[in-house]
Amino acid sequence: MPAGLAEDQLGGALMDELECRVRHAAVRRRVMSADEAAELIPQEAVVGVSGFARAGSPKEVPLALARQAREGRRLRLTVWSGGSVGAEVDRELAGTGAIARRLPYQSLPELRQLINRGEVAYADQHLGSFPGMVRAGHLGRPDVALLEACAIREDGAIVPTSSVGNAPLYAAMAQRLIVEVNLWQPAQLEGLHDIWTYPLPPVGHHCLSLTDPLQRVGQAAIAVDPGRIAAVVVTCRPDHPYTFETPDEALRKIGQHLLEFLRGEVQVGRLPAALLPLQTGIGSLGNAVLKALHEWDHAGLTFFSEVLQDGVLDLIDAGMAKGASGTCLALSSAGQERLHRNLDRYLKHLVLRPQEVSNSAEAIRRLGVIAINTAVEVDIYGHVNSSHLFGTRMLNGIGGSGDFSRNAYLSIFVTRSVARDGAISCIVPMVSHVDHTEHEVHVLITEQGVADLRGLSPRERARAIIARCAHPTYRPLLEDYFGRACRQGGYSPHLLQEALLWHHRYLETGTMLP
Amino acid sequence: MPAGLAEDQLGGALMDELECRVRHAAVRRRVMSADEAAELIPQEAVVGVSGFARAGSPKEVPLALARQAREGRRLRLTVWSGGSVGAEVDRELAGTGAIARRLPYQSLPELRQLINRGEVAYADQHLGSFPGMVRAGHLGRPDVALLEACAIREDGAIVPTSSVGNAPLYAAMAQRLIVEVNLWQPAQLEGLHDIWTYPLPPVGHHCLSLTDPLQRVGQAAIAVDPGRIAAVVVTCRPDHPYTFETPDEALRKIGQHLLEFLRGEVQVGRLPAALLPLQTGIGSLGNAVLKALHEWDHAGLTFFSEVLQDGVLDLIDAGMAKGASGTCLALSSAGQERLHRNLDRYLKHLVLRPQEVSNSAEAIRRLGVIAINTAVEVDIYGHVNSSHLFGTRMLNGIGGSGDFSRNAYLSIFVTRSVARDGAISCIVPMVSHVDHTEHEVHVLITEQGVADLRGLSPRERARAIIARCAHPTYRPLLEDYFGRACRQGGYSPHLLQEALLWHHRYLETGTMLP
Repeated sequence: MPAGLAEDQLGGALMDELECRVRHAAVRRRVMSADEAAELIPQEAVVGVSGFARAGSPKEVPLALARQAREGRRLRLTVWSGGSVGAEVDRELAGTGAIARRLPYQSLPELRQLINRGEVAYADQHLGSFPGMVRAGHLGRPDVALLEACAIREDGAIVPTSSVGNAPLYAAMAQRLIVEVNLWQPAQLEGLHDIWTYPLPPVGHHCLSLTDPLQRVGQAAIAVDPGRIAAVVVTCRPDHPYTFETPDEALRKIGQHLLEFLRGEVQVGRLPAALLPLQTGIGSLGNAVLKALHEWDHAGLTFFSEVLQDGVLDLIDAGMAKGASGTCLALSSAGQERLHRNLDRYLKHLVLRPQEVSNSAEAIRRLGVIAINTAVEVDIYGHVNSSHLFGTRMLNGIGGSGDFSRNAYLSIFVTRSVARDGAISCIVPMVSHVDHTEHEVHVLITEQGVADLRGLSPRERARAIIARCAHPTYRPLLEDYFGRACRQGGYSPHLLQEALLWHHRYLETGTMLP
Repeated sequence: MPAGLAEDQLGGALMDELECRVRHAAVRRRVMSADEAAELIPQEAVVGVSGFARAGSPKEVPLALARQAREGRRLRLTVWSGGSVGAEVDRELAGTGAIARRLPYQSLPELRQLINRGEVAYADQHLGSFPGMVRAGHLGRPDVALLEACAIREDGAIVPTSSVGNAPLYAAMAQRLIVEVNLWQPAQLEGLHDIWTYPLPPVGHHCLSLTDPLQRVGQAAIAVDPGRIAAVVVTCRPDHPYTFETPDEALRKIGQHLLEFLRGEVQVGRLPAALLPLQTGIGSLGNAVLKALHEWDHAGLTFFSEVLQDGVLDLIDAGMAKGASGTCLALSSAGQERLHRNLDRYLKHLVLRPQEVSNSAEAIRRLGVIAINTAVEVDIYGHVNSSHLFGTRMLNGIGGSGDFSRNAYLSIFVTRSVARDGAISCIVPMVSHVDHTEHEVHVLITEQGVADLRGLSPRERARAIIARCAHPTYRPLLEDYFGRACRQGGYSPHLLQEALLWHHRYLETGTMLP
């Protein structure tokens, strides 16, 4: 079906489908083309879009806006999302220069380049606390909420698709709602979501009563006044699938070290046999962690995470995982197909929540989450950089890693010990940017081994990290730096004139090695 | 009364007082001298002590341990506290070399020196999440809980004194309890405390139902099995009083800028007229903030903080503040006397909680706290160092500033723009240590002005901080650095070989100026 059709262009079968998908008659009369809907978005609007980890973000209207921008419509939009969104927003629309400001997370190279050139004002934010800032009005109000839905119910409530993110928040706050009903997303997704939101400002004093990762505490859809839905656009464009590499030897070793460490914790009675709710990061390291968990000794694993990848479906299929809570499903093509074909079965095991619930400090602490996040680099004292290359260039953003690591029962960071064939040591004297301080890093794991940092002083942490996690090539260099710094004294000994020298050397010579 | 007396050395009037204070007969029979009690502490024990901001920490037994250590008893203790504790622990006992390891916070120069020389293994911790780590068993178990009390009730429950801190946690976990009943602390403190604790490990799934800063959700005392109280020691040593300087011109200006900023927020409807619960840091800057609040436009202020200083009592007396919740009262001599003389009145306005409640992420977010914390230095992108001098030397620790700033409705950091008569700029190209990332700093205030950083990109933040907060002497130097860094590009532009040069220059030449 061609995308972005107005109601009068739809055929009979599609009209039937539309009646099932848009069950509120007055709202159904607001079906229009993507171009017409795009024109409802003012030139300098703040647009709150659905989408997290590229799943469930709007597709037709951003493409229509991009077309309009290329045809000369001047747009300087502020785009707020849940997490990262699809290429329709962060590649096609961003590429036209129509996005002036972008919060709170992104992950596509085209937008990243504009951000690093200073051409798009990007403000990287904790994905769990950003919604609170929006709700408080610290950043102004969204003019338009542009949301993907799999259905609009009889009462006008919006059923999200493969992510929830900040859709309920933008729906509550925006003056005008534009809903993309995506027929590619199965109607049976209804029932997957648990929409619980904090009240509007300034503070609501509401307790989030979540005490189990799979518990449902909210509604199945986003309640809105249907009169505020200004436009409905129909599409059937798929979510952009992820590709996951098969873990290499180093990633497999990281997974094995993780299992050994967790086994030790179970043995001393600090963790139950089925562990505690797990959070894993996205990408190849997160994928490797999920693969390793197949070898865990006990079934009954649960996830309280933000992004649910294919590996979570695998663990459910294997009978290892009881279920998973997140704010989105970021799947490969095969994963999307598997989900869609077996939705009835997966619905019993999955729940998607607004990101301020999936990433809520309160829930993460109460449930006792084991957080497993990825570092770009770690320094000898355990400070983690997870967002910046060489202290200056933005990669993606801090995402939810701060929400989870700060509030976790057990916070584990994983990284390879070296990158770029050994030209970069991921263990450095001082990180070039700090996203997570020493306090948020209980355990560090590389393919070299495990450094258990709990309760250690910085000097003890340095000895553990260098001995257990650094690559042998860089170990003597780190020992030399640390030894000379200790001779100058201090709690976290450093040689300030050398602390960032390795990074500078790489930029000048292509390697951190002298 | 001489300190640390055994029951048989006590006179008649004191015996009566003791009966009032130790109302459990079997426990009263365990009154002994501080020396005897000290001998119950094994040589390498993990000792959990009461105390926060030097208030309510044990006094006699630490002094007895110090005497024993000086007389040749070999002690290598691990001491866990609430926050900072009195000189009996962190000066007298630490000075003998008896403390091998110290968590999670300290503030006395004698211990600090040992820490910076690497002779005491100190592990600085978030004061709000440290209790969770202890409860989980990540750090082992405390062998002994050494707690100050103003009374032991008929049921054996322990009534804390001028702080709660981690006393309930150590009381629950330690094998053996030693209680110092301090007669200097008024018996009428009973009723000041609200003891609510999370359940023991691994996780309890309990909701903290606090929805108002002054609400009581727990018990008036720390419930313990009286059989576990191994010793009671009587003392009447006072808490070490604080001294607060009269704010100078710069501090007064910071206070005025703060009020102007808050007024603006009220005007645009982002804050109610009586504001939201306030948290202020300790020390001269915190004191200046409290003084400034006397000029606030509306009564009805509340505090949800960790340390309550004299300034809070002043605001209550002036009718400006309805009340305050914290984990301790850190007062001057005059403040102590005022509190003790007017306890009945103040009890209606004050509540002291365990630090994992006063500093709980959950409560801070739910109540919408306005957090006002102090920075040692801030960089052009808004990263804050609040604990390290020149990247290496520990000052006190991160304390609760991370708990509050991360979870606050509005997180404000205050600092002077320069220190040491202008030889140090508190606004630097890159901080030499990061305690709070850019994400935790919504607003920065110096005596120069206010930089509202909400929603800004790093480059925008840099322009705001340099223009509004930096000292005029350093402004052109910062502009020069920032301009040259921007020409190299990046999201947070930096010149890695120069980023820490100012700090290095100060250490070499005594000034950051070239």
